[in-house]
Amino acid sequence: MVKVTVWNENRHEQKNPVVKSIYPNGIHTTIASFLEEAGYDTLTATLEQPEHGLTYEVLENTDVLIWWGHLAHNEVEDEIVQKVYEKVLQGMGLIVLHSGHFSKIFKKLMGTSCDLKWREAAETERLWVLDPTHPIVEGIGEYIEIDQEEMYGEHFDIPTPDELVLVSWFKGGEVFRSGCTFKRGNGKIFYFRPGHETYPTYHQKEVQKIITNAVSWANRSKRNYPSYGHHEPIESLKD
Amino acid sequence: MVKVTVWNENRHEQKNPVVKSIYPNGIHTTIASFLEEAGYDTLTATLEQPEHGLTYEVLENTDVLIWWGHLAHNEVEDEIVQKVYEKVLQGMGLIVLHSGHFSKIFKKLMGTSCDLKWREAAETERLWVLDPTHPIVEGIGEYIEIDQEEMYGEHFDIPTPDELVLVSWFKGGEVFRSGCTFKRGNGKIFYFRPGHETYPTYHQKEVQKIITNAVSWANRSKRNYPSYGHHEPIESLKD
Amino acid sequence: MVKVTVWNENRHEQKNPVVKSIYPNGIHTTIASFLEEAGYDTLTATLEQPEHGLTYEVLENTDVLIWWGHLAHNEVEDEIVQKVYEKVLQGMGLIVLHSGHFSKIFKKLMGTSCDLKWREAAETERLWVLDPTHPIVEGIGEYIEIDQEEMYGEHFDIPTPDELVLVSWFKGGEVFRSGCTFKRGNGKIFYFRPGHETYPTYHQKEVQKIITNAVSWANRSKRNYPSYGHHEPIESLKD
Amino acid sequence: MVKVTVWNENRHEQKNPVVKSIYPNGIHTTIASFLEEAGYDTLTATLEQPEHGLTYEVLENTDVLIWWGHLAHNEVEDEIVQKVYEKVLQGMGLIVLHSGHFSKIFKKLMGTSCDLKWREAAETERLWVLDPTHPIVEGIGEYIEIDQEEMYGEHFDIPTPDELVLVSWFKGGEVFRSGCTFKRGNGKIFYFRPGHETYPTYHQKEVQKIITNAVSWANRSKRNYPSYGHHEPIESLKD
Repeated sequence: MVKVTVWNENRHEQKNPVVKSIYPNGIHTTIASFLEEAGYDTLTATLEQPEHGLTYEVLENTDVLIWWGHLAHNEVEDEIVQKVYEKVLQGMGLIVLHSGHFSKIFKKLMGTSCDLKWREAAETERLWVLDPTHPIVEGIGEYIEIDQEEMYGEHFDIPTPDELVLVSWFKGGEVFRSGCTFKRGNGKIFYFRPGHETYPTYHQKEVQKIITNAVSWANRSKRNYPSYGHHEPIESLKD
Repeated sequence: MVKVTVWNENRHEQKNPVVKSIYPNGIHTTIASFLEEAGYDTLTATLEQPEHGLTYEVLENTDVLIWWGHLAHNEVEDEIVQKVYEKVLQGMGLIVLHSGHFSKIFKKLMGTSCDLKWREAAETERLWVLDPTHPIVEGIGEYIEIDQEEMYGEHFDIPTPDELVLVSWFKGGEVFRSGCTFKRGNGKIFYFRPGHETYPTYHQKEVQKIITNAVSWANRSKRNYPSYGHHEPIESLKD
Repeated sequence: MVKVTVWNENRHEQKNPVVKSIYPNGIHTTIASFLEEAGYDTLTATLEQPEHGLTYEVLENTDVLIWWGHLAHNEVEDEIVQKVYEKVLQGMGLIVLHSGHFSKIFKKLMGTSCDLKWREAAETERLWVLDPTHPIVEGIGEYIEIDQEEMYGEHFDIPTPDELVLVSWFKGGEVFRSGCTFKRGNGKIFYFRPGHETYPTYHQKEVQKIITNAVSWANRSKRNYPSYGHHEPIESLKD
Repeated sequence: MVKVTVWNENRHEQKNPVVKSIYPNGIHTTIASFLEEAGYDTLTATLEQPEHGLTYEVLENTDVLIWWGHLAHNEVEDEIVQKVYEKVLQGMGLIVLHSGHFSKIFKKLMGTSCDLKWREAAETERLWVLDPTHPIVEGIGEYIEIDQEEMYGEHFDIPTPDELVLVSWFKGGEVFRSGCTFKRGNGKIFYFRPGHETYPTYHQKEVQKIITNAVSWANRSKRNYPSYGHHEPIESLKD
């Protein structure tokens, strides 16, 4: 069974009654709950826990890590970021949600600023499927419509994604690469745009379906880590 | 005229008479010299200079930066790495040579370990052109042969290149992605494998031709940096 | 000097007074005219000419071919399509415009149906730049706005583009991959979406700039065609 | 259960006693046999059967089609090729083996000549894993070694693969993109190089493992075919 750890900063939920009313037990609990139902073995972890809840034992037992953060990216300890980074290169899957685009771990794995345009105006987002072969959109129609979301607009400063699965249309006139896959070392990464804290996005079935599919797609590689460093010749070097 | 700065650690040249005999004035001088002949405006910079020779003025006047380092990656100041990184995102071209795969700047831009297999055995390397449309291999035949080189072997821990231009065959049995392009922000990056300090690789005409082509390809973008942050709607948000 | 041949079906111009009033001498003449001004050596060719104007001599003297067709894709002779196809693999650039997505030559080079959604409703199209490093969008801002265009919507049934340069937003709620590059053999291909015949799209400066840039980018490769077939060993096969 | 049809030209087996001795019941039977053992529901089809064994019923009941051909590519009826092509766009997986690179169906789906260099000299091939995240190489070490194989060398005239999973090293000095994935419509395609008829390649465990993995990866998409053609606006076109 795939073991998922859902990490959440869990700050908006404490400070903003609107967020609290949508996610009474935090975004992480909502996400963990629909993943549990889908048959995954789930755990949650939050910023305020010791080592942000991402201890050696937790990371050893995580096949896929989900990341939601926004206000407190800078409070995440560099040492923890480094541990997560190494785990991804060794094969742990990583799903970065919404404002997690600015998290230390995502920027470190991308090698770019991960900057973008944004606007909070409760506008319609429509995510179009560009890659109908992709398992992450299995069971999803030609698009997903979210009534009210924050806008994220291009240019999105990421490296060229390995696969561009979804592109968003926003009412206000922008587009955005909303579902992107990346490979790093033995690990697979999925960035998924939706999920502003003041809207009930993670309660929407299609959004849950995509995250559920993504966990399965990103599941930890069973390969050994490649051997690096000095290497004896396999063939004779004589002529 | 394209302004190129050739950066070199310049350590092997001071310590190893073999290297000194091949590159009496340093690898940087050899590279700058053939680029000068090709019509570029060139400058060199080395580790031991103040700010490693990469002052504000130098970087402002650099369209393409070439990077050779090996022994002393860790002596490169983080602050300088950060400045180069920002310049690349803003549009400066970057060409990373050989052991520069382990430089701080390349690892930061890639988001991976950039690790690989290696062997110093003076063996034959043959670089095959995989992308005949690419301007970086204009004027190059179907392959380049280098009589004696260090081996680098897969797995090479980089993100999927935007373009895979060259793949190397090594006598001892390995292959390697030897010519790779990457886009980061407004900037273009080319990684080019050959160039071990104890062999006269940068005196070989085809190697010079590829680096010369790469400078032209990587030339600084004339675009403005994209606008990021809050963005007013372009279209009405009313229904 | 780059030699461009602009091919146009030239049927709507004969049948529809609206089209005639926008392009009195045909779409091909308008396109050839701004390319001429940009310093290219231009020629036009149309469906009704012998061999559709694409004789051996014309193709031999074409570095980049531009293709506009719509009503009469099936009237293009297979033999001519085959000749153009071979020229592309040998290094001739190809720029396919708008409804040319359904041309025989584009479908043959893509290997897919090239189907899409469409709607003629004179609605706003906004083309966002996704790849700020690309020479095809040099001199273009963050987006281009076209007041009135036909809508093309995803899913667009093409192979994954080598580079995704532009994505369109449409007023009616769709998105589309509007500027895509592809490599085939020694040749480079650019598909550019805008250009419905009943709107003055090819009179718009930014649209002209992109086509002008694309010609320069797609310019015929100077490489020899690779050698294929039986190949003697380069290295000894003895142990 | 995934339904696999293994298609084989089945000519060498009839004409060449060496091939007959290695594959007494044909290459198709050997491949079908290890796939059956791996738990797939398998069927075989050959050139000489009516409709080459690829009737409407067979294709309707095929999730993944495997293709081996060499001598008789031109004897495959265009009508059958067209049916297979449409099935792939609709979601059927396709695995093309070795000399199948020159089959009508592969060339049609690629849009290129699919040409390459070759040599029959019973030399060593070593296939290196370039993409350790890929499910097609699960259970495979850092490389596979095949003692005796035909050489295929670059340039291989294919479009840029969506994923480059394996690159081959050949004793005689060449490299080759040996494991490549492509997406076309709803369908997934895997090209896998090894399998010259005079060597026992398909009896080798690692080769079998890769083909077995590829079937699972290429399994027919459960998505509906996208809707194409005229499309009503989703959003109001009024300002």
